[in-house]
Amino acid sequence: MSAPKKVVLAYSGGLDTSIILKWLQTEYGCEVVTFTADLGQGEELDPARKKAELLGIKPENIFIEDVREEFVRDFVFPMFRANAVYEGLYLLGTSIARPLISKRLVEIAEATGADAVAHGATGKGNDQVRFELAAYALNPDIKVIAPWREWDLSSRTRLLEFAEQHQIPVAKDKRGEAPFSVDANLLHTSSEGKVLEDPAIAAPDYVYQRTVHPEDAPNEPEFIEIGFEKGDAVSINGEAMSPATILTKLNEYGGKHGVGRLDLVEGRFVGMKSRGIYETPGGTILLEAHRGIESITMDRGAMHLKDELMPKYAELIYNGFWYSPEREMLQAAIDSSQEHVTGTVRVKLYKGSVNTVGRWSDHSLYSEEHVTFEDDAGAYDQKDAAGFIQLQALRLKLIAMRNKHVAEKK
Amino acid sequence: MSAPKKVVLAYSGGLDTSIILKWLQTEYGCEVVTFTADLGQGEELDPARKKAELLGIKPENIFIEDVREEFVRDFVFPMFRANAVYEGLYLLGTSIARPLISKRLVEIAEATGADAVAHGATGKGNDQVRFELAAYALNPDIKVIAPWREWDLSSRTRLLEFAEQHQIPVAKDKRGEAPFSVDANLLHTSSEGKVLEDPAIAAPDYVYQRTVHPEDAPNEPEFIEIGFEKGDAVSINGEAMSPATILTKLNEYGGKHGVGRLDLVEGRFVGMKSRGIYETPGGTILLEAHRGIESITMDRGAMHLKDELMPKYAELIYNGFWYSPEREMLQAAIDSSQEHVTGTVRVKLYKGSVNTVGRWSDHSLYSEEHVTFEDDAGAYDQKDAAGFIQLQALRLKLIAMRNKHVAEKK
Amino acid sequence: MSAPKKVVLAYSGGLDTSIILKWLQTEYGCEVVTFTADLGQGEELDPARKKAELLGIKPENIFIEDVREEFVRDFVFPMFRANAVYEGLYLLGTSIARPLISKRLVEIAEATGADAVAHGATGKGNDQVRFELAAYALNPDIKVIAPWREWDLSSRTRLLEFAEQHQIPVAKDKRGEAPFSVDANLLHTSSEGKVLEDPAIAAPDYVYQRTVHPEDAPNEPEFIEIGFEKGDAVSINGEAMSPATILTKLNEYGGKHGVGRLDLVEGRFVGMKSRGIYETPGGTILLEAHRGIESITMDRGAMHLKDELMPKYAELIYNGFWYSPEREMLQAAIDSSQEHVTGTVRVKLYKGSVNTVGRWSDHSLYSEEHVTFEDDAGAYDQKDAAGFIQLQALRLKLIAMRNKHVAEKK
Amino acid sequence: MSAPKKVVLAYSGGLDTSIILKWLQTEYGCEVVTFTADLGQGEELDPARKKAELLGIKPENIFIEDVREEFVRDFVFPMFRANAVYEGLYLLGTSIARPLISKRLVEIAEATGADAVAHGATGKGNDQVRFELAAYALNPDIKVIAPWREWDLSSRTRLLEFAEQHQIPVAKDKRGEAPFSVDANLLHTSSEGKVLEDPAIAAPDYVYQRTVHPEDAPNEPEFIEIGFEKGDAVSINGEAMSPATILTKLNEYGGKHGVGRLDLVEGRFVGMKSRGIYETPGGTILLEAHRGIESITMDRGAMHLKDELMPKYAELIYNGFWYSPEREMLQAAIDSSQEHVTGTVRVKLYKGSVNTVGRWSDHSLYSEEHVTFEDDAGAYDQKDAAGFIQLQALRLKLIAMRNKHVAEKK
Repeated sequence: MSAPKKVVLAYSGGLDTSIILKWLQTEYGCEVVTFTADLGQGEELDPARKKAELLGIKPENIFIEDVREEFVRDFVFPMFRANAVYEGLYLLGTSIARPLISKRLVEIAEATGADAVAHGATGKGNDQVRFELAAYALNPDIKVIAPWREWDLSSRTRLLEFAEQHQIPVAKDKRGEAPFSVDANLLHTSSEGKVLEDPAIAAPDYVYQRTVHPEDAPNEPEFIEIGFEKGDAVSINGEAMSPATILTKLNEYGGKHGVGRLDLVEGRFVGMKSRGIYETPGGTILLEAHRGIESITMDRGAMHLKDELMPKYAELIYNGFWYSPEREMLQAAIDSSQEHVTGTVRVKLYKGSVNTVGRWSDHSLYSEEHVTFEDDAGAYDQKDAAGFIQLQALRLKLIAMRNKHVAEKK
Repeated sequence: MSAPKKVVLAYSGGLDTSIILKWLQTEYGCEVVTFTADLGQGEELDPARKKAELLGIKPENIFIEDVREEFVRDFVFPMFRANAVYEGLYLLGTSIARPLISKRLVEIAEATGADAVAHGATGKGNDQVRFELAAYALNPDIKVIAPWREWDLSSRTRLLEFAEQHQIPVAKDKRGEAPFSVDANLLHTSSEGKVLEDPAIAAPDYVYQRTVHPEDAPNEPEFIEIGFEKGDAVSINGEAMSPATILTKLNEYGGKHGVGRLDLVEGRFVGMKSRGIYETPGGTILLEAHRGIESITMDRGAMHLKDELMPKYAELIYNGFWYSPEREMLQAAIDSSQEHVTGTVRVKLYKGSVNTVGRWSDHSLYSEEHVTFEDDAGAYDQKDAAGFIQLQALRLKLIAMRNKHVAEKK
Repeated sequence: MSAPKKVVLAYSGGLDTSIILKWLQTEYGCEVVTFTADLGQGEELDPARKKAELLGIKPENIFIEDVREEFVRDFVFPMFRANAVYEGLYLLGTSIARPLISKRLVEIAEATGADAVAHGATGKGNDQVRFELAAYALNPDIKVIAPWREWDLSSRTRLLEFAEQHQIPVAKDKRGEAPFSVDANLLHTSSEGKVLEDPAIAAPDYVYQRTVHPEDAPNEPEFIEIGFEKGDAVSINGEAMSPATILTKLNEYGGKHGVGRLDLVEGRFVGMKSRGIYETPGGTILLEAHRGIESITMDRGAMHLKDELMPKYAELIYNGFWYSPEREMLQAAIDSSQEHVTGTVRVKLYKGSVNTVGRWSDHSLYSEEHVTFEDDAGAYDQKDAAGFIQLQALRLKLIAMRNKHVAEKK
Repeated sequence: MSAPKKVVLAYSGGLDTSIILKWLQTEYGCEVVTFTADLGQGEELDPARKKAELLGIKPENIFIEDVREEFVRDFVFPMFRANAVYEGLYLLGTSIARPLISKRLVEIAEATGADAVAHGATGKGNDQVRFELAAYALNPDIKVIAPWREWDLSSRTRLLEFAEQHQIPVAKDKRGEAPFSVDANLLHTSSEGKVLEDPAIAAPDYVYQRTVHPEDAPNEPEFIEIGFEKGDAVSINGEAMSPATILTKLNEYGGKHGVGRLDLVEGRFVGMKSRGIYETPGGTILLEAHRGIESITMDRGAMHLKDELMPKYAELIYNGFWYSPEREMLQAAIDSSQEHVTGTVRVKLYKGSVNTVGRWSDHSLYSEEHVTFEDDAGAYDQKDAAGFIQLQALRLKLIAMRNKHVAEKK
């Protein structure tokens, strides 16, 4: 790879990406463009602009954007249509944000004439893969720089020395090492590393940042109604809202009731297992409610197929293959199943759990007329079941006869 | 089908199966053998014997058996190795009991020279399919009689008339119609029908029979440790127990903390949707804990494959294909994955939820040495990630180049 | 089911469906509408009109249509995009024609105010299921009449008596029983039953009707080039053609070279196994060529997913679920994969076989630059493979270390 | 990686691996152990011993073994039980040999106290991955040396210079470059590279080495009968044979009739597409015959599941994951399906094609009694089909009613 001339950096404004910014300038002598996204991580973006300016970035090279609506509409919602969970439990909060960031990095590179993009993910994790696969899929000629895989700033001491040497301001509370590492966006907050590295030991209470402890949640349950249209949430308690607003609201509800905590050991794409603490308050409610509305509006044939496809779909997102033809194929299948996933679900939130307690829809497939224990006025002829079972059984009978015949011959 | 001469009836001792018993005698003039199983449904079996005798069944034709250990060891546990859930949520508590009952019906038929078996499931539900497919798979020549599909006793009034006419005692509280229908065994209690038929309306509190309301559960969480060997639970808090004992104990824990309630609309095999209220206290804990122990002992490759196979496996059990070659194929795959699923999981029970908070094992694949944020002493070379990503990206780059090339030619 | 008043019958003009026509009139006293489709079965349709008139059908109730283009464009081609084969070998030639026929039956019923449709499939086969599932999916209120399951004309003698009694003309060569049963359309000819019922015995030569014996095929191979656009064949040897024309042409090529014969025992949806002789000359060439063009234009990720989905897709078509949400989901996924399946394939036809010998495309993903054994000018860095393998291996190493550790502790 | 001290080299005796042998000695100064396997590649092994001795390998460090029976019994046959084909067509002849070689390399390393193994695969292909993943899975501490990824002998000229410089004898016909590259074993011969690099151009006739041109094959078809037991071939024309003998014999039959040629563009695991010419004469017959015996002995439920699992299984073998838990899970499922795959298949070989023309078995599930067009004496009640279809249709009807209802409301 030839040296980059102009690099678009995914820049948070924090110490680590500030060091990367400076390192790119000194190591490669290249011009740096910064991209700072508001993905709902709950931090002010203004300081990022000031810090970038302080580090010598030209104003026209500073990109700060609120991408929350795009994030929820084009990434989170399509994923929730699939009821995607990784390894049975993880709602993919970090994984789903990476393709959007890479997309904007590549677009800004094209707009500013940059030939490279850079990110602050380490060489041990999944995020490097997600950032880079997305970038290469969108621009096969782009260079990607991953300073953590390249430089020799491998200890906290070295990093701080570098910062001091290059006059990067270090907030007092950043001098010591954080007891764990955090990633956050509108969908979730993840915490990992350090005090969390022994999976036998329960995560300390202070790790949780976004949800109250279930023990501290209200003693009264709260009920909310979520409206759906074609598989996407469109309203809460009858009030229509934009995608990002809905997720924000659901986060408030979930956070208040301690909903959406997960302590997980997962298999990373790079081959090792890691332990993470995830808080996905709104997403956890959304998953439950989406399953709830699907339960009355989606046919069994579609649902079972969807359930079979889901683990592969979740794996693709986890592994960074959002921009791959196979993810797009699965999305096409999933989206085709959501045409009638329209209606309302009522969920109960209480001390850490969320449960569907009612659902209704003009698109319902539930037929009380057919299922009733009462007289069904001929809607369903129980005698049909005899023939149904006989033909379902035929191949099993043929197997049994064969096995008997074979056993007798021995 | 020629008329049966001797029938083994799945007999609960309740009013419905007593009417069936009598109806078989009068309709077919055949000898009836009764089979009453203790599957952990929580009812005394002695009354069933007395009632069978009262209805004229010869003592040698009355079979009453405690099959709880067999049920958990040979049916429930193999299923939980798969983390089986139907339509994302249902733990298959009714489905998994049916093959065992049919197996004993067929075995008793062979032992007593009966040419038929009979069950009390209606023509609208899944249970008729499960009973009959299992019976035919085990004995292709057996006759199966499903009185609910045959007789004309289609209303409560007619049934009670028949009972009176044939001097079948009817308990006072059975004269009126139950407000919903119940099935129970050691794994779960299900309730459906009548007051539950409108899926928009929350289930009344009195429907729940086996778990306290989360609101009434203890205000303090409780922590328990579940030990696993090769995928099966073998101990609680360090105390070794038999399969049925473990499930019984977990039911107590779960019931006390309001764990394992589910309000679900599901797609029946016979084609309609139905709404059920399920209580699976111990099973819900077991699923969470099994996922927990797998998370550190099972490789990603095995786990993802298992997750992809699971929906099909669950569907097969739900649809009544326990005794089918494809269920056995999947079981072989699943069991092969459990060789090292051995260790201990610590879960927290609190007001309706169960969550893993710690897990440890001599068979762990979790390597703190590899994953650590600290110096890993060379266990993992971050530079390897660059090559890994380059080759993962190659096909995506080739696609992007192709697409660009095609777009330019247009 | 109440008695039908007006029935649309799938009418071939042959003896069996003529008897059905008359039986519908006499049994139900209902008005009969006939629908005769030219699906490329190679028979004149004019006699069907005359015979219908002779049997008293009003001219406005006789529908005769050439649906060959629709058949290939909307049914055959979408299916071939999936490379669908049932049980590894069968190209689904009969299965794929049924939904189209049912669609027209239902449409004609709506146009003519008929309340029922009828078909001539027996109660043992798959076709009854395919006809009826399609009809019900398109009109849930339609009645379907399957005379073969209802009447008592269960022997050849009874049928002929009925014909004579009702003055249905019987061609001399139809008096005896045919030695096997045939179904044909533009995609294939199938033969089954009678002389073919012992799967140990090779099918007699005279069964084959559409392909020469490979031994009699030309001694010189023939090469043809098939052009594709977005997964569908659009030209032969550079000449653009309509879908039905292409399939007709490919049938000529295949028939001449003895391509596309299949002697198969297959598992019917109704539970038994049956043996069929299939001739699919054009389809066999099309499948090979489609695979050929996909091989250079479709990415591995998409192709492997497609291959995994295919058996389910083929099963759905075989079982009659063309009009089901799950088939539509799979079709959406498959179609999404065909965007760039454009280019040309050269195949060799010779004495029963068809093989791709060359393929080229402006949409090719094949990169000689990358794959070459010669100097690749840096297109590919072999050192990347080391990192790729290390990270692919990491989980396998962790398993091996774990297993060693466990073995040592024993 | 620290320098290896003693290396076991997969040694063919050819020029390339001789150069590697010498390079290992000179580059690392390490002791070399050679392993030469007879996998049925059709070359004498004696020259390999002599050449190793000439290059200074101590006699006790020269391992020459006939592993043909192990190869077929433990690798080829288990794979054929799955009907494994990669990307629809490739019979995995190269892929399946690599794990066996790695297994012996690792075992010999353990026996001789070597700390490393080495292979002669390049950095662009799949074989490096297969060799190394297998080695690491079997011994996580082994070092693997892949000289082609390390050295600077990147052109033919440099290689020959190195050979001359180190007095490695170069056969006259090896001085020029081969027009393509070959790999062979008992299952197949593959050819790729150089003259084959343009996938638009048909492979020259001289590339094929193991099968006659179909045009040159006998003008008379030949019929053979292959006996199977539990999924594995055990006899030809009634004569019992060992696994390797059977495959050898089938290769003779196939080679004589021009069976088993394949011209394929495939997706390599390392991300690029490549074009290969494969000749798998015996394997192609075996696949057809195995499908043939399965068709009458294996139930539809098992077969369809197997067909769905196959692409994943084939991909795992292609990608080098033979020794992975997921391949073992799939193998367990597949093997469980083969219990009754016992019987005989008659195939016709003629000018490039192989087709099943008859099959019979004491384990047959084919029931003429059920399928017959004649009177079946009540084996099958056609009326059952009505109920079967009604319940299969119910969910489709409910969808249609819902859709109608929704359309009307708009």
